[in-house]
Amino acid sequence: MDDTTARHTEKMRRIKAARDEMMKTKTEEKGLIIVNTGKGKGKSSAGFGMIMRCIAHQMPCAVVQFIKGARATGEATFLRERFVDECRLFVTGEGFTWETQDRDRDIAAAQNGWEIAKAQILDPDIQFVLLDEINIALRNDYLDIDEVVDFLLTQKPHMTHVCLTGRNAKPELIEAADLVTEMTLLKHPFRDGVKAQKGVEF
Amino acid sequence: MDDTTARHTEKMRRIKAARDEMMKTKTEEKGLIIVNTGKGKGKSSAGFGMIMRCIAHQMPCAVVQFIKGARATGEATFLRERFVDECRLFVTGEGFTWETQDRDRDIAAAQNGWEIAKAQILDPDIQFVLLDEINIALRNDYLDIDEVVDFLLTQKPHMTHVCLTGRNAKPELIEAADLVTEMTLLKHPFRDGVKAQKGVEF
Repeated sequence: MDDTTARHTEKMRRIKAARDEMMKTKTEEKGLIIVNTGKGKGKSSAGFGMIMRCIAHQMPCAVVQFIKGARATGEATFLRERFVDECRLFVTGEGFTWETQDRDRDIAAAQNGWEIAKAQILDPDIQFVLLDEINIALRNDYLDIDEVVDFLLTQKPHMTHVCLTGRNAKPELIEAADLVTEMTLLKHPFRDGVKAQKGVEF
Repeated sequence: MDDTTARHTEKMRRIKAARDEMMKTKTEEKGLIIVNTGKGKGKSSAGFGMIMRCIAHQMPCAVVQFIKGARATGEATFLRERFVDECRLFVTGEGFTWETQDRDRDIAAAQNGWEIAKAQILDPDIQFVLLDEINIALRNDYLDIDEVVDFLLTQKPHMTHVCLTGRNAKPELIEAADLVTEMTLLKHPFRDGVKAQKGVEF
């Protein structure tokens, strides 16, 4: 073993020891409030990636889509056709609000979605609930942020994970959450005239 | 219709018109070089969310995992058990390097992964390739960044999407990419002593 390799091995050994020590203190298991926000891509797809993990681990889960109802997304089709037993899917939105142009209908759809969301979160059979694009409904004040945060903090079962996605997450929600990721856009092909494409965007 | 509702309807109509106009210019379809980087969560899970979309749209796809081989991840199990026909899965890494403590073996594993990756990208049957955690291999100089970028820019078939994940994406890769998202950590439960949990982290 030459010097460089020996130094590398020793450095990696120290990192592993430090990491093992750190991870020993990570003993708590609890259901998390997870927020994926920001203007970048991947907020919903990361949520659906966690749904994929749940299905793999046989953890019953549910998805409530708040806004995307008007467009058939790949992930909704996928869950409906292939995983109807493993993951409950509720499509409650009627499309982005600039498509519907009807605020009262948007509010009613969001409220309906929230009632479904609460029932799924409270259901003891369900271990993970994805509230896809709920931040849009909160941002537009279709739902009351205080009610949502209060419910998550006081009524969510201890071991249930809830993931809330959408840009412009409200500060109250970020404050209440355990795990918050902001997806930041560094570069986007729309700028160069490339349209939304299946597999990538929907 | 009262005044507020009328104003809302008019505003939404204007936004929809502007958006429709903007989207008309987005006519190009092309395979994208997509990068998910940053210290936050969701880089891999957003990649796997896109795989889910591809499977839903019957787009044949492939995943090459560069680093996570040592741990059975939910998404690998999921793909292997359920989607062996729709998505090819190659687990080439032997775990994070602080686990292996053997630089030569890490380099050999990464090089092997890259050979597989090139073959999948060049395969005309495959429309989307996820190179999971390849940024770690690039960052550690297990792979040559110039070779990887040159291959993506000159040999990737025009319509094939390639998604590269992992923190610390090299500037050369970001420069070459069409779509770059940085996942930023705003809050993480490890800080509070909560351990990695299935469904969420793996």
